Amino acid sequence: MDHVGRQQRLQEGLSGQRLDLLLITHLPNIRYLCGFSGSAAVLLLTESQCVFLTDGRYSAQAHAEVQGARIVIGRKSPLAAAAEYLRSNRRGLGRKAQFRTGIEGEHLTVAHRRQLAEMLPSKFRLQEAPPLVEQARMVKDADELNLIRAAVVLGASLFDVALEVIRPGVRETDVAAEMEYAARKAGASEMSFQTIVASGERSALPHGRASEAAIPARGFVVCDFGVILGGYCSDMTRTVHVGRPTREARQAYQAVRDAQQAALATVRSGVGVSEVDQAARKLLQEQGLSKYFTHSTGHGVGLEIHEAPRLAAQQSELLRPGMVITIEPGVYIPRKWGVRIEDMVVVTEAGCEVLTPSSKELIVV
Amino acid sequence: MDHVGRQQRLQEGLSGQRLDLLLITHLPNIRYLCGFSGSAAVLLLTESQCVFLTDGRYSAQAHAEVQGARIVIGRKSPLAAAAEYLRSNRRGLGRKAQFRTGIEGEHLTVAHRRQLAEMLPSKFRLQEAPPLVEQARMVKDADELNLIRAAVVLGASLFDVALEVIRPGVRETDVAAEMEYAARKAGASEMSFQTIVASGERSALPHGRASEAAIPARGFVVCDFGVILGGYCSDMTRTVHVGRPTREARQAYQAVRDAQQAALATVRSGVGVSEVDQAARKLLQEQGLSKYFTHSTGHGVGLEIHEAPRLAAQQSELLRPGMVITIEPGVYIPRKWGVRIEDMVVVTEAGCEVLTPSSKELIVV
Repeated sequence: MDHVGRQQRLQEGLSGQRLDLLLITHLPNIRYLCGFSGSAAVLLLTESQCVFLTDGRYSAQAHAEVQGARIVIGRKSPLAAAAEYLRSNRRGLGRKAQFRTGIEGEHLTVAHRRQLAEMLPSKFRLQEAPPLVEQARMVKDADELNLIRAAVVLGASLFDVALEVIRPGVRETDVAAEMEYAARKAGASEMSFQTIVASGERSALPHGRASEAAIPARGFVVCDFGVILGGYCSDMTRTVHVGRPTREARQAYQAVRDAQQAALATVRSGVGVSEVDQAARKLLQEQGLSKYFTHSTGHGVGLEIHEAPRLAAQQSELLRPGMVITIEPGVYIPRKWGVRIEDMVVVTEAGCEVLTPSSKELIVV
Repeated sequence: MDHVGRQQRLQEGLSGQRLDLLLITHLPNIRYLCGFSGSAAVLLLTESQCVFLTDGRYSAQAHAEVQGARIVIGRKSPLAAAAEYLRSNRRGLGRKAQFRTGIEGEHLTVAHRRQLAEMLPSKFRLQEAPPLVEQARMVKDADELNLIRAAVVLGASLFDVALEVIRPGVRETDVAAEMEYAARKAGASEMSFQTIVASGERSALPHGRASEAAIPARGFVVCDFGVILGGYCSDMTRTVHVGRPTREARQAYQAVRDAQQAALATVRSGVGVSEVDQAARKLLQEQGLSKYFTHSTGHGVGLEIHEAPRLAAQQSELLRPGMVITIEPGVYIPRKWGVRIEDMVVVTEAGCEVLTPSSKELIVV
């Protein structure tokens, strides 16, 4: 992993952002920048320094994992250690009237911001920095794409497990249990989110986490799931039908599949994310189903299950090669049924490469 | 669940906190107060009103779960919906020059605070409220204790699963996989944190999440794990030994067990949390091991795996009947081995009730 290159690019951009230093507190951003995968840390960046701070519990792990940064083991919290470090090492920052100190406003809590302001001399002026690391993380490099591909392939293998288990009378949680067990045995460190197995009327819940409900004799089953492997997430959805589908069910499934295909066909470098969202919505509109498509069309995936960009109507981001996104239109008729189909894709100059290998034919079990 | 009573007690306390209203944004706090278990919501409290705000994805779930609050389904984010509601319903707040608006500073991000300030008229003066809901949550009521007991019993059953699997050569993740599978099959919605199975030298890592490492022929295996059942968490640690333990290993195990027992013996209503911490530390000091006990002695458990109170040297909280806490001293010799023993207990007037039923004898497998 090019941790040092990532740090350098961020450091080179600091002055352009009118920042003397940047305090990274969001753990996935810290992992991206220096490789640390533990749960307590702060990373401190100036144009010339990169300092990693954690507490005694993570001393061994920090020395094993952290790349390109000086490691400081604090006696209190990493945030207090960062403040202490800045107080003691002011000289290294140069002679300035003020140090413009960027914080991650999307992640730092109001209380931590206040504590930081109390711990730091007034020369350190805290200000919300733009989401610089999130922006860098949007475009994945070759090492990341390799890890993501592996996570997606492992994730997709769980759909085969689900197909073996989904039968009328089986509890949704039993389906999830088998999938999660297979994920663990294949090396996943955990699921990337709570497994969704939503059958019958529950398929109309866009977030129908597997429940104790038994799969009914007839109806859709939405399966939305992912793993974390090597730190990177996978995310996919397939909807299968138990028993013979009605003509209406077949049509709805085909409409969602067409919408998903239309959105996929729109993806290429330079296209706005809202255009991709619009492409899916337009297809469903033609079938009178767009009012039942109640969420956005997709999101970035990487170290986090939901990251930038968001593929929604109000968003202005343009797709770039190396972005990894989901394409996941769905239709949900309250108290009746729901269908969603989701792939992960990597954006290329000319279009996209669909990473998720599983069939999107309507499978009837 | 006494959701309405919880809301009322909080409402009655607002004026004493010099607050006209309180914006609850931390999801476990929202669940505690009104029962909603989804992942996007704001709860708005005044002395006379309780308003729950979510988005369209959670409409059905909100109507099924939310108790005692008016439900508002917003078109944008719950935070924007809360701001919109306050703008439109200012009259209901009475004629005041300013509305002192409490926010949860420990949870609300700097960016959300700024957005809220931008969306609200200047009459609404945002201020950090004390952790009022966390304080209420410290003492569990009878309904909560029933759910916690069930979670602890299910959690403890996983130790028996682990004992069946732990053998030299078996990967740590395979042990975790069997435990997590059993948890799911028994109804757990998920694990309460990433399962720790740390064998051999890895047992010296206090947070040694199960890795691909194979269990060595001889040494300790620390198993720290928990489930979420009915929304409530369990948490326990047992350390077993593979192969014949050395005399040093036996002594260290006994020292940790004695320290854990000493801490348990200190627990009763009115005792300071630091005294409990001190009791464990003192026992280990007598064995020359206290410098290897690098974390605090315990923490509250409930809707979250870590909640108030914290059982540590600098903390001043007094134990009260109904508090549910862990008692978990440990000793970690870097690059050699580690031992931790952890029970969950409920504080009573006269002492405590140990909830975790599993044996603490040194088990050799």
